[in-house]
Amino acid sequence: MGLWDIDKIEYVGRKGGAKEGLGFRYYDADKVVAGKKMKDWLRFAVAYWHTFDQRLVDPFGDGTAERPYDKYTNPMDLALAKVDYAFEFYTKLGVEYFCFHDRDIAPEGDTLRETNANLDKVVDKIEENMKSTGVKLLWNTQNLFTNPRFVSGAATSPFADIFAYSGAQVKKSLEIAKRLGAENYVFWGGREGYENLWNTEMHREQAHMAKLFHLAADYAKEIGFEGQFLIEPKPKEPTSHQYDFDAAAALAFLKTFDLEDVFKLNLEGNHANLAGHSYQHEVRFARENGILGSLDANQGDKLIGWDMDEFPSDLYDCVAVMWEVLANGSIGPHGGLNFDAKPRRTSFAADDLFRAHIVGMDSYAAGLLVAAKMHEDHYIEDLQADRYSSYESGIGKSIEDGSATLASLEEYSLDKTQAELRAATKSDHLEQVKATINNYIVDALAEA
Amino acid sequence: MGLWDIDKIEYVGRKGGAKEGLGFRYYDADKVVAGKKMKDWLRFAVAYWHTFDQRLVDPFGDGTAERPYDKYTNPMDLALAKVDYAFEFYTKLGVEYFCFHDRDIAPEGDTLRETNANLDKVVDKIEENMKSTGVKLLWNTQNLFTNPRFVSGAATSPFADIFAYSGAQVKKSLEIAKRLGAENYVFWGGREGYENLWNTEMHREQAHMAKLFHLAADYAKEIGFEGQFLIEPKPKEPTSHQYDFDAAAALAFLKTFDLEDVFKLNLEGNHANLAGHSYQHEVRFARENGILGSLDANQGDKLIGWDMDEFPSDLYDCVAVMWEVLANGSIGPHGGLNFDAKPRRTSFAADDLFRAHIVGMDSYAAGLLVAAKMHEDHYIEDLQADRYSSYESGIGKSIEDGSATLASLEEYSLDKTQAELRAATKSDHLEQVKATINNYIVDALAEA
Amino acid sequence: MGLWDIDKIEYVGRKGGAKEGLGFRYYDADKVVAGKKMKDWLRFAVAYWHTFDQRLVDPFGDGTAERPYDKYTNPMDLALAKVDYAFEFYTKLGVEYFCFHDRDIAPEGDTLRETNANLDKVVDKIEENMKSTGVKLLWNTQNLFTNPRFVSGAATSPFADIFAYSGAQVKKSLEIAKRLGAENYVFWGGREGYENLWNTEMHREQAHMAKLFHLAADYAKEIGFEGQFLIEPKPKEPTSHQYDFDAAAALAFLKTFDLEDVFKLNLEGNHANLAGHSYQHEVRFARENGILGSLDANQGDKLIGWDMDEFPSDLYDCVAVMWEVLANGSIGPHGGLNFDAKPRRTSFAADDLFRAHIVGMDSYAAGLLVAAKMHEDHYIEDLQADRYSSYESGIGKSIEDGSATLASLEEYSLDKTQAELRAATKSDHLEQVKATINNYIVDALAEA
Amino acid sequence: MGLWDIDKIEYVGRKGGAKEGLGFRYYDADKVVAGKKMKDWLRFAVAYWHTFDQRLVDPFGDGTAERPYDKYTNPMDLALAKVDYAFEFYTKLGVEYFCFHDRDIAPEGDTLRETNANLDKVVDKIEENMKSTGVKLLWNTQNLFTNPRFVSGAATSPFADIFAYSGAQVKKSLEIAKRLGAENYVFWGGREGYENLWNTEMHREQAHMAKLFHLAADYAKEIGFEGQFLIEPKPKEPTSHQYDFDAAAALAFLKTFDLEDVFKLNLEGNHANLAGHSYQHEVRFARENGILGSLDANQGDKLIGWDMDEFPSDLYDCVAVMWEVLANGSIGPHGGLNFDAKPRRTSFAADDLFRAHIVGMDSYAAGLLVAAKMHEDHYIEDLQADRYSSYESGIGKSIEDGSATLASLEEYSLDKTQAELRAATKSDHLEQVKATINNYIVDALAEA
Ligand SMILES: [Co+2]
Ligand SMILES: [Co+2]
Ligand SMILES: [Co+2]
Ligand SMILES: [Co+2]
Ligand SMILES: [Co+2]
Ligand SMILES: [Co+2]
Ligand SMILES: [Co+2]
Ligand SMILES: [Co+2]
Repeated sequence: MGLWDIDKIEYVGRKGGAKEGLGFRYYDADKVVAGKKMKDWLRFAVAYWHTFDQRLVDPFGDGTAERPYDKYTNPMDLALAKVDYAFEFYTKLGVEYFCFHDRDIAPEGDTLRETNANLDKVVDKIEENMKSTGVKLLWNTQNLFTNPRFVSGAATSPFADIFAYSGAQVKKSLEIAKRLGAENYVFWGGREGYENLWNTEMHREQAHMAKLFHLAADYAKEIGFEGQFLIEPKPKEPTSHQYDFDAAAALAFLKTFDLEDVFKLNLEGNHANLAGHSYQHEVRFARENGILGSLDANQGDKLIGWDMDEFPSDLYDCVAVMWEVLANGSIGPHGGLNFDAKPRRTSFAADDLFRAHIVGMDSYAAGLLVAAKMHEDHYIEDLQADRYSSYESGIGKSIEDGSATLASLEEYSLDKTQAELRAATKSDHLEQVKATINNYIVDALAEA
Repeated sequence: MGLWDIDKIEYVGRKGGAKEGLGFRYYDADKVVAGKKMKDWLRFAVAYWHTFDQRLVDPFGDGTAERPYDKYTNPMDLALAKVDYAFEFYTKLGVEYFCFHDRDIAPEGDTLRETNANLDKVVDKIEENMKSTGVKLLWNTQNLFTNPRFVSGAATSPFADIFAYSGAQVKKSLEIAKRLGAENYVFWGGREGYENLWNTEMHREQAHMAKLFHLAADYAKEIGFEGQFLIEPKPKEPTSHQYDFDAAAALAFLKTFDLEDVFKLNLEGNHANLAGHSYQHEVRFARENGILGSLDANQGDKLIGWDMDEFPSDLYDCVAVMWEVLANGSIGPHGGLNFDAKPRRTSFAADDLFRAHIVGMDSYAAGLLVAAKMHEDHYIEDLQADRYSSYESGIGKSIEDGSATLASLEEYSLDKTQAELRAATKSDHLEQVKATINNYIVDALAEA
Repeated sequence: MGLWDIDKIEYVGRKGGAKEGLGFRYYDADKVVAGKKMKDWLRFAVAYWHTFDQRLVDPFGDGTAERPYDKYTNPMDLALAKVDYAFEFYTKLGVEYFCFHDRDIAPEGDTLRETNANLDKVVDKIEENMKSTGVKLLWNTQNLFTNPRFVSGAATSPFADIFAYSGAQVKKSLEIAKRLGAENYVFWGGREGYENLWNTEMHREQAHMAKLFHLAADYAKEIGFEGQFLIEPKPKEPTSHQYDFDAAAALAFLKTFDLEDVFKLNLEGNHANLAGHSYQHEVRFARENGILGSLDANQGDKLIGWDMDEFPSDLYDCVAVMWEVLANGSIGPHGGLNFDAKPRRTSFAADDLFRAHIVGMDSYAAGLLVAAKMHEDHYIEDLQADRYSSYESGIGKSIEDGSATLASLEEYSLDKTQAELRAATKSDHLEQVKATINNYIVDALAEA
Repeated sequence: MGLWDIDKIEYVGRKGGAKEGLGFRYYDADKVVAGKKMKDWLRFAVAYWHTFDQRLVDPFGDGTAERPYDKYTNPMDLALAKVDYAFEFYTKLGVEYFCFHDRDIAPEGDTLRETNANLDKVVDKIEENMKSTGVKLLWNTQNLFTNPRFVSGAATSPFADIFAYSGAQVKKSLEIAKRLGAENYVFWGGREGYENLWNTEMHREQAHMAKLFHLAADYAKEIGFEGQFLIEPKPKEPTSHQYDFDAAAALAFLKTFDLEDVFKLNLEGNHANLAGHSYQHEVRFARENGILGSLDANQGDKLIGWDMDEFPSDLYDCVAVMWEVLANGSIGPHGGLNFDAKPRRTSFAADDLFRAHIVGMDSYAAGLLVAAKMHEDHYIEDLQADRYSSYESGIGKSIEDGSATLASLEEYSLDKTQAELRAATKSDHLEQVKATINNYIVDALAEA
């Protein structure tokens, strides 16, 4: 059967029964939905760190993961072997993209020179596998948070040597992005934030972070790397406050430091919730501000205050996010849907890696099917158009077209009675809207 | 059409299309599911306070509600008229139960004597309507929180006159319960908690609360009222800490103050979330501890920290709660499903009251259908039985049957290797469990 | 004794003993601290809505407040009488500023024309009192959230007539600001947000909000009003998501809609916490981004999810905020410290209004004394300077001055060992920093 | 200087200046406060796991800790060497108690037999050091969560072999407790909770947990171990729901499973906050219910949703907790104040271990001084006595002494007017109470 003791995952459909198993119920890669193949709407990617490196540790326990490559003991042997496991995994799962941090794929040496040499060997092997399988790199990134040297941040470290090292590490990682044809390049803030404000020069640290981004953009231009740069917001954890708190904070940062032309956002569901937002909110905000870049599709538990990075299964979120994607025409200019997700610690078997991805893929495929049916009916479009219709003519039009002044508005309003004004408002029947979305979920998926 | 400008709500089913309207999609009162009629599993009740009294105010705004009885200006006229509106509402909606606080139905006078006289007049009219319509009283309760006299609590007020008044008010309310044949009698803590611990004798206040409960139980026995007493937990709001924080705190209280034989719990979904729990958790805890009494079915937004009392539409919650109800054989000894819910402030039209209840009823009916299908397949039962099977024989059996000692366990374990012990654990494939529940939702409702 | 049965509040100092009473322990208006009089650093303001209008209602209870003007029943009589009570309050408390919403001071009529006529009468009286007492207007604002017409927002209402009315209301309010010499003009978002994204055109609503701000700025210029415009962020409540979520979201908004030259921020402590931030964070962010305008000094309970608007007493917050104010040279260009705070519902006596303001004033005065002592010692300044010193020369300097490139950083870093890099980091002894702040609190206040 | 490059920590007092350093500002071990020596009120303990084993890892990074025993590579050598470091640490810090988990002090072998042999060697050395230094064991406990075998819990594992192993491990640990004269024996729930309710038999798992506790109690009696058994509540983390959620849930559990005579609670500050409670609340609840056993003194950040285990420095918490301790006469029957706390990841130097403990000890010593001064003045006692005085006579007395009935209360209340009832309530001037506590902090510590 190959390296993984499992067969290629096939589309089975609803006829497989309710118990989710080793086949897709909704994800049918080449099925055309809303004018595009499912796989082209969704562009699923596997995350190297969670899927191949994650031992399922938590702050109170050692790793529980059982993996077929646990037999390797030499770090470079393991790193090279994992590449084969990874590409067979992509192929068997039917996923066309992957993502990685530099330190996911190869061990560190004592110096960056040695580390880069290790990296090169693994990248050689990845490149070969990409050619032979057709699997593509959605994005890569750099790990600037695990090593103790990053204890107080990387670009925002108060220690200049650490900034310097971070820049050097980014340089190498951009070269790999160029070489492997990455469609995007991601910066997740890691430890770019603060533990305590009393000893922190916040704006200076943010300026340093912006400096690194500008240097990276300059270098990308220099080497001809044309992937999309992305920031991934997260509000807190590991630091008490992460500078890329949420989409709005990231937008303020990009504007403040003149980076708006270069960056878009990579949005994660669990991070949205930790910031007090729904995933729908973050995706909507980015879409409407033209900075929707890509998605780290996962979920958390809204009653829990840390990042769980669960595989997505909540259909409400999947429908809402895919509705935004349909409205946007795509996830982003080069975006995809990366499972920044790990199986729960209790799902420690090797085949849980397949099972968990299937659940995530089926859930987003379901989200696409439901959102497409809603789009087809213009349900949300009509709801909104009707609700804002008073802006299409008369006083409303004068407000939007710029001809109104406070004086014209006063003249219009001065003698309207309380009753007239209340009559200008309408109930939005919000309960029915929620039930209608429930109904679309059932109707669209019953047909699948 | 009667008092409400709306026709009786009928079962339409999925053929009505995805847009939820003025008909039931899933709730088919007499349809037999899992051996009982839907209406007998669900025993829906309308909450007087939210449905007829609630003006949809919030801390930042005046009420937006538009109601057909807004034309009444005299408080007693209004109170009496509302009874007719209420019973027509129940009948048109097809709900067989209702619930109220004493102060929901009649205005206060300057003294309790005057207030009780007002109450009697309205209760007379309610009694007549109950007879003529067959609608029954799921529970009544007393409002010990709105009037400024309850500023520092009722039974837990530091001011003895307020305790005394509260007891007198409870007495009258129990007499009404007896007269109207209430199936339950509820105590929601209102302001029974503290704002600040520095000026609070917490245990003394809890002892006072228990005292009132004992007095109420004694008086119920005296007058022959046999309804089930219920406590409704809530963790905070309006006070910073409510003594009936959650189901576990309520159980500790009942045991501490020798009230466990007399009380069960009325559990609310939004309150569960405010306490950091899922609704499923609170219902499970109560069921397994034999104190599941009744349900205040509503929902909130887990990202929001105050009580929203939204009509329930989240199918995940409805399925989980109805699964517990099926496992319990009923909601509780006399329990029902009371919509302690208000339309959103923006759903201010009179017909939103119907629309919102339909959504709530359909969502719980859907929950019942899904849970019943899961029960039919023994899906959860088998999952659990398999997971705990090691306790059915051998060392596991000796643990449960009481024959094991630490010494026997040591002897059994002393030479087991790390590998043997890990082999004794199994992956729980949790991601698949979540997807399977998604699948049951679609499969069960597609058939509806 | 005048309208309020209380004497003028005097500075007593620590000799008054630990029990806080009707005298100031730390606030000594004319005492010079860090080069300015206390009153000029703090510029305290009383909030009309909470202090004179607030009945101490909450979502579960009627108002408990007892006020000396409760005897007035006619709304205009009451409104006019309150002006006298208000100015005697300011004078007896020794506060030189006040703030109000238009609807705080005068009742609405059936039309805006009638409402404005009511307003004018009260403003006449306020103007007289300002002249006779010397009390000044820190800021005024408009109430666009209480009336049911604002059910779905004001500038962001989907109903154009409501936008129009809002504009007309702002026009009048700006005229009052001009007439009374307001130093600032505030926009708190009220209902400018959404309840649910499915029926919301978020960006269009934000554009409408920006439109109103531009119209207001244009009109201010037209009438020669030169006060500072301020936005007050809040993340949620009453809506599920308020557009001015936090300082960062407000900055993104101002930049997106070309309003950065016109607006600064009015920051509230409780709102900061509801957004997941410390008050220190919000003030720091605004200061460093040049948008610190004014302060709504209050506090909440970080374990509680709704806006409590408590009077500030937490010395940690007061010290942190006043440290930022000292670093900024002032609260803001025209800023002050407005008590957007109400006594707790249980502090319902009239004299609690004085008592609560004294606590707030003493706490911020204490914060000023402590922060000034820390500044005097350069404690924080030295801590930060030392921590970031590696950016003052060598590679650090090259990063800040723009001469570094990724290539130069790589060259610098390529052969550094793990140990060398770790040696480039330093412990920040954070526990000691926290204890040192404790110590400054005690030492500075022991001297007071 | 010995193993740690630091001198014995001495009491310096406030004369040392505001910058906290390597001396105590408030903790003066033999100083008599409220009738007992400071050290006897506080009984500080050092936690082996955080202080000697913790590498300052977090979910996103490797450990940063620098420790003088990092040179040891053989696990048993390291374990034995650490004992010397530990006892010198206790002695230099002037702490008389310590706490540990079995797995903190010695490495695991492949079988429990081998593990126990390792343990015995280290316990031998600990015993010697206890004798030579006089340092005592506040409590020990067992680690039933780190090893992958505990993936689904220990006593609540669905796998009976894991329960068996857990029992065997507890047996050994109790023997060590007996041998070393532990004053208490603690059970922190570790993974005793659930990840998801669908696959969980919650009550059966809780019954298994209770079974282990009964077996432990039986065995303690058998071997003559007389230390106090303690449960340590925590609401979530690592599991989604921990069975010992908070003090109230623990009390319900103890009563349900007939364990109330055997167990008291060990309460942690950060855990209190994660459950939505103040630390004051949890300690008060335990004290008033007679189950206050011991304290894990630490703190978190109320805006952060995971367990930070910071060293305590918040004076408000320290004062509140020590007030309860004074009211209780002691922390608990054998209780102490264990620093279940780690320096922040950025405080990675070896001497930060001393610095952080000094801060914690000084903060609790300060709490004791302030609480003692408040007690001396009867400030809180009088406040409460006055507030509840209406229960000392008349109708209030009849309520407390059991002579009241609902009928007697009705008779008393029936003709009281609204105004009379409101007059029976009193403002609690809560703002002043908070300021007075501020004042006590300054006054008591200014004298120190
Ligand atoms: Co991510
Ligand atoms: Co994440
Ligand atoms: Co309820
Ligand atoms: Co509720
Ligand atoms: Co404010
Ligand atoms: Co506020
Ligand atoms: Co602990
Ligand atoms: Co902890």
